[in-house]
Amino acid sequence: MLNPEYIGFFAATLTTSAFLPQAYKIWKSKTTDGLSLTMYTIMGLGTMSWLFYGVLIESPSVIVANCISFSIILFIVTFILRSKK
Amino acid sequence: MLNPEYIGFFAATLTTSAFLPQAYKIWKSKTTDGLSLTMYTIMGLGTMSWLFYGVLIESPSVIVANCISFSIILFIVTFILRSKK
Repeated sequence: MLNPEYIGFFAATLTTSAFLPQAYKIWKSKTTDGLSLTMYTIMGLGTMSWLFYGVLIESPSVIVANCISFSIILFIVTFILRSKK
Repeated sequence: MLNPEYIGFFAATLTTSAFLPQAYKIWKSKTTDGLSLTMYTIMGLGTMSWLFYGVLIESPSVIVANCISFSIILFIVTFILRSKK
């Protein structure tokens, strides 16, 4: 039987790294035009909730995925807020 | 004991609705400037993998969340591709 955690960590790698090109684009262009602050704020709160869910169901892949995603989202939100000043 | 699925569905509502402002912004402005096609493509693949994970661990919240997210991401990717023509 396939261990679901393999699939979980594969999914985690994808959804986590999905935020990296956007973070890199922001870092390089120094602009956040076209990016929705609302989206990233809600996503940050959602990621925190999934992290809590991962702890409750004791799923290593859900916990690791959301820890990393949350860090990257925090970086993006900070950058959007700074550029709004 | 707190049912983890309550947290799961709360998290699902947040991470799913997080994509809506971005989708609305695209729909209204008809532009996808600043959005990373790479990000949304990887996110789409990741969401599909989480869906598979949800089926394997039989988690209703993970399944529902990723079904809806995948649909919205598909809309965004389609729009970015169309605007690139």
